Amino acid sequence: MFDPACPSADVPFRVGGKWSGMVIRCLEGGPRRFGELRVPIRGVTPKVLSETLRAMERDGFLVRTAHDENPPRVEYALTPLGRTLLPLLDVAREWSEAHLAGVLAAREEDGSDAS
Amino acid sequence: MFDPACPSADVPFRVGGKWSGMVIRCLEGGPRRFGELRVPIRGVTPKVLSETLRAMERDGFLVRTAHDENPPRVEYALTPLGRTLLPLLDVAREWSEAHLAGVLAAREEDGSDAS
Repeated sequence: MFDPACPSADVPFRVGGKWSGMVIRCLEGGPRRFGELRVPIRGVTPKVLSETLRAMERDGFLVRTAHDENPPRVEYALTPLGRTLLPLLDVAREWSEAHLAGVLAAREEDGSDAS
Repeated sequence: MFDPACPSADVPFRVGGKWSGMVIRCLEGGPRRFGELRVPIRGVTPKVLSETLRAMERDGFLVRTAHDENPPRVEYALTPLGRTLLPLLDVAREWSEAHLAGVLAAREEDGSDAS
Protein backbone atom coordinates (compact mmCIF):
# COMPACT_ATOMS: atom_id res chain seq x y z
CA MET A 1 0.00 0.00 0.00
CA PHE A 2 2.86 2.38 0.75
CA ASP A 3 5.75 3.64 -1.24
CA PRO A 4 9.10 2.51 0.18
CA ALA A 5 9.96 6.20 0.53
CA CYS A 6 7.36 6.50 3.26
CA PRO A 7 7.36 3.22 5.14
CA SER A 8 4.29 3.15 7.29
CA ALA A 9 1.85 0.78 8.82
CA ASP A 10 -0.55 3.61 9.52
CA VAL A 11 -3.92 3.32 7.93
CA PRO A 12 -6.54 6.03 7.63
CA PHE A 13 -8.64 4.26 10.20
CA ARG A 14 -10.36 6.40 12.74
CA VAL A 15 -11.64 5.10 16.03
CA GLY A 16 -14.69 6.94 17.12
CA GLY A 17 -15.79 10.48 16.58
CA LYS A 18 -15.41 13.82 18.25
CA TRP A 19 -17.15 12.77 21.47
CA SER A 20 -15.91 9.21 21.89
CA GLY A 21 -13.02 10.19 24.14
CA MET A 22 -15.32 11.92 26.59
CA VAL A 23 -17.75 9.01 26.59
CA ILE A 24 -14.90 6.62 27.41
CA ARG A 25 -13.77 8.87 30.28
CA CYS A 26 -17.30 9.07 31.63
CA LEU A 27 -17.66 5.28 31.56
CA GLU A 28 -14.23 4.67 33.07
CA GLY A 29 -15.65 4.41 36.60
CA GLY A 30 -18.54 2.12 35.73
CA PRO A 31 -21.82 1.87 33.80
CA ARG A 32 -23.89 4.98 33.24
CA ARG A 33 -27.26 5.84 31.83
CA PHE A 34 -27.83 8.09 28.85
CA GLY A 35 -28.85 11.06 31.00
CA GLU A 36 -25.79 10.61 33.21
CA LEU A 37 -23.58 10.94 30.14
CA ARG A 38 -25.39 13.99 28.86
CA VAL A 39 -24.75 16.09 31.96
CA PRO A 40 -20.94 16.12 31.80
CA ILE A 41 -20.71 16.03 28.00
CA ARG A 42 -22.16 19.45 27.45
CA GLY A 43 -22.46 20.75 23.94
CA VAL A 44 -23.49 17.41 22.49
CA THR A 45 -27.05 16.98 21.28
CA PRO A 46 -29.05 13.86 22.26
CA LYS A 47 -29.03 12.79 18.61
CA VAL A 48 -25.25 13.01 18.27
CA LEU A 49 -24.68 11.33 21.63
CA SER A 50 -26.98 8.48 20.55
CA GLU A 51 -25.10 8.08 17.28
CA THR A 52 -21.78 8.14 19.13
CA LEU A 53 -22.93 5.43 21.54
CA ARG A 54 -24.29 3.31 18.72
CA ALA A 55 -21.04 3.58 16.75
CA MET A 56 -19.01 2.67 19.82
CA GLU A 57 -21.27 -0.32 20.46
CA ARG A 58 -20.82 -1.42 16.84
CA ASP A 59 -17.03 -1.19 17.23
CA GLY A 60 -17.17 -3.33 20.36
CA PHE A 61 -16.08 -0.57 22.75
CA LEU A 62 -19.21 -0.57 24.88
CA VAL A 63 -22.27 -2.63 25.65
CA ARG A 64 -25.79 -1.36 26.04
CA THR A 65 -27.88 -3.22 28.59
CA ALA A 66 -31.63 -2.72 28.90
CA HIS A 67 -32.78 -3.75 32.37
CA ASP A 68 -36.33 -5.05 32.53
CA GLU A 69 -37.61 -2.59 35.10
CA ASN A 70 -40.39 -0.06 35.29
CA PRO A 71 -39.46 2.53 34.13
CA PRO A 72 -36.98 0.74 31.85
CA ARG A 73 -33.34 1.34 32.71
CA VAL A 74 -30.71 1.34 29.98
CA GLU A 75 -27.04 1.39 30.87
CA TYR A 76 -23.84 1.74 28.90
CA ALA A 77 -20.58 0.14 30.01
CA LEU A 78 -17.09 -0.17 28.58
CA THR A 79 -15.98 -3.56 27.29
CA PRO A 80 -12.40 -4.82 27.82
CA LEU A 81 -11.72 -3.67 24.24
CA GLY A 82 -13.08 -0.21 25.09
CA ARG A 83 -10.78 -0.06 28.11
CA THR A 84 -7.75 -0.50 25.86
CA LEU A 85 -8.45 3.03 24.63
CA LEU A 86 -7.88 4.57 28.07
CA PRO A 87 -4.06 4.65 27.78
CA LEU A 88 -4.42 6.33 24.37
CA LEU A 89 -6.56 9.02 25.94
CA ASP A 90 -3.90 9.52 28.60
CA VAL A 91 -1.24 10.02 25.93
CA ALA A 92 -3.48 12.37 23.97
CA ARG A 93 -4.19 14.37 27.12
CA GLU A 94 -0.49 14.67 27.96
CA TRP A 95 0.16 15.87 24.43
CA SER A 96 -2.62 18.44 24.68
CA GLU A 97 -1.35 19.76 27.98
CA ALA A 98 2.12 20.18 26.52
CA HIS A 99 1.36 21.38 23.00
CA LEU A 100 -2.21 22.56 22.52
CA ALA A 101 -1.23 26.13 23.36
CA GLY A 102 1.30 25.97 20.52
CA VAL A 103 -1.37 24.90 18.06
CA LEU A 104 -3.72 27.66 19.14
CA ALA A 105 -0.89 30.20 18.86
CA ALA A 106 -0.12 28.98 15.33
CA ARG A 107 -3.77 29.33 14.35
CA GLU A 108 -3.87 32.81 15.79
CA GLU A 109 -0.77 33.82 13.85
CA ASP A 110 -2.15 32.28 10.67
CA GLY A 111 -5.36 34.21 11.12
CA SER A 112 -3.52 37.50 11.51
CA ASP A 113 -1.47 36.73 8.36
CA ALA A 114 -4.71 36.49 6.41
CA SER A 115 -5.99 39.87 7.56
CA MET B 1 -16.98 22.25 32.06
CA PHE B 2 -17.34 18.74 33.44
CA ASP B 3 -19.59 17.18 35.97
CA PRO B 4 -17.71 15.91 39.04
CA ALA B 5 -19.14 12.47 38.23
CA CYS B 6 -16.95 12.33 35.14
CA PRO B 7 -13.76 14.20 35.95
CA SER B 8 -11.97 14.84 32.70
CA ALA B 9 -9.56 17.22 31.12
CA ASP B 10 -10.35 15.85 27.68
CA VAL B 11 -11.73 18.32 25.23
CA PRO B 12 -13.41 17.57 21.92
CA PHE B 13 -10.42 18.92 20.10
CA ARG B 14 -9.25 17.02 17.07
CA VAL B 15 -5.79 17.38 15.65
CA GLY B 16 -5.81 16.95 11.93
CA GLY B 17 -8.00 14.91 9.67
CA LYS B 18 -8.10 11.44 8.26
CA TRP B 19 -4.85 11.77 6.33
CA SER B 20 -2.73 13.83 8.74
CA GLY B 21 -1.09 10.78 10.32
CA MET B 22 0.14 9.54 6.97
CA VAL B 23 1.43 12.97 5.99
CA ILE B 24 3.39 13.16 9.24
CA ARG B 25 4.90 9.72 8.62
CA CYS B 26 5.84 10.68 5.08
CA LEU B 27 7.56 13.85 6.28
CA GLU B 28 9.33 12.11 9.16
CA GLY B 29 12.49 11.56 7.09
CA GLY B 30 12.70 15.07 5.67
CA PRO B 31 10.98 17.59 3.38
CA ARG B 32 8.92 16.34 0.47
CA ARG B 33 7.13 17.80 -2.50
CA PHE B 34 3.42 17.50 -3.12
CA GLY B 35 3.87 14.79 -5.75
CA GLU B 36 6.14 12.80 -3.45
CA LEU B 37 3.39 12.75 -0.84
CA ARG B 38 0.73 11.71 -3.31
CA VAL B 39 2.47 8.51 -4.38
CA PRO B 40 2.47 6.77 -0.99
CA ILE B 41 -0.80 8.26 0.22
CA ARG B 42 -2.98 6.49 -2.27
CA GLY B 43 -6.68 7.02 -2.15
CA VAL B 44 -6.41 10.70 -1.37
CA THR B 45 -7.43 13.21 -4.03
CA PRO B 46 -5.17 16.19 -4.80
CA LYS B 47 -7.85 18.49 -3.42
CA VAL B 48 -8.10 16.67 -0.10
CA LEU B 49 -4.33 16.37 0.21
CA SER B 50 -4.01 20.13 -0.41
CA GLU B 51 -6.62 20.87 2.23
CA THR B 52 -4.89 18.53 4.68
CA LEU B 53 -1.52 20.21 4.12
CA ARG B 54 -3.07 23.66 4.49
CA ALA B 55 -4.80 22.71 7.75
CA MET B 56 -1.57 21.24 9.11
CA GLU B 57 0.30 24.41 8.15
CA ARG B 58 -2.34 26.50 9.92
CA ASP B 59 -1.95 24.38 13.05
CA GLY B 60 1.81 24.89 12.98
CA PHE B 61 2.67 21.25 12.24
CA LEU B 62 4.40 21.86 8.93
CA VAL B 63 5.93 24.61 6.86
CA ARG B 64 5.52 25.10 3.14
CA THR B 65 8.57 26.53 1.38
CA ALA B 66 8.45 27.77 -2.21
CA HIS B 67 11.95 27.69 -3.71
CA ASP B 68 12.57 30.32 -6.35
CA GLU B 69 13.57 27.94 -9.13
CA ASN B 70 12.41 27.16 -12.63
CA PRO B 71 10.21 25.17 -12.53
CA PRO B 72 9.16 26.35 -9.05
CA ARG B 73 9.80 23.84 -6.29
CA VAL B 74 7.51 23.72 -3.27
CA GLU B 75 8.41 21.59 -0.29
CA TYR B 76 6.64 20.60 2.89
CA ALA B 77 8.51 19.89 6.12
CA LEU B 78 7.55 19.07 9.69
CA THR B 79 8.07 21.72 12.36
CA PRO B 80 9.28 20.84 15.86
CA LEU B 81 5.62 21.05 16.93
CA GLY B 82 4.69 18.62 14.15
CA ARG B 83 7.36 16.21 15.34
CA THR B 84 5.72 16.04 18.77
CA LEU B 85 2.94 14.09 17.06
CA LEU B 86 5.26 11.22 16.07
CA PRO B 87 5.14 9.47 19.47
CA LEU B 88 1.34 9.69 19.37
CA LEU B 89 1.35 7.94 16.02
CA ASP B 90 3.58 5.23 17.47
CA VAL B 91 1.13 4.65 20.31
CA ALA B 92 -1.82 4.63 17.89
CA ARG B 93 -0.03 2.13 15.67
CA GLU B 94 0.73 -0.17 18.59
CA TRP B 95 -2.90 -0.02 19.61
CA SER B 96 -4.02 -0.83 16.05
CA GLU B 97 -1.68 -3.78 15.80
CA ALA B 98 -3.01 -5.16 19.06
CA HIS B 99 -6.71 -4.34 18.80
CA LEU B 100 -7.84 -3.40 15.32
CA ALA B 101 -8.75 -7.01 14.53
CA GLY B 102 -11.05 -6.95 17.55
CA VAL B 103 -12.83 -3.87 16.26
CA LEU B 104 -13.28 -5.35 12.80
CA ALA B 105 -14.61 -8.57 14.35
CA ALA B 106 -17.10 -6.56 16.42
CA ARG B 107 -18.28 -4.73 13.31
CA GLU B 108 -18.66 -7.99 11.45
CA GLU B 109 -20.72 -9.48 14.26
CA ASP B 110 -22.84 -6.35 14.50
CA GLY B 111 -23.50 -6.53 10.77
CA SER B 112 -24.66 -10.12 10.98
CA ASP B 113 -26.97 -9.22 13.89
CA ALA B 114 -28.70 -6.74 11.63
CA SER B 115 -29.36 -9.24 8.87
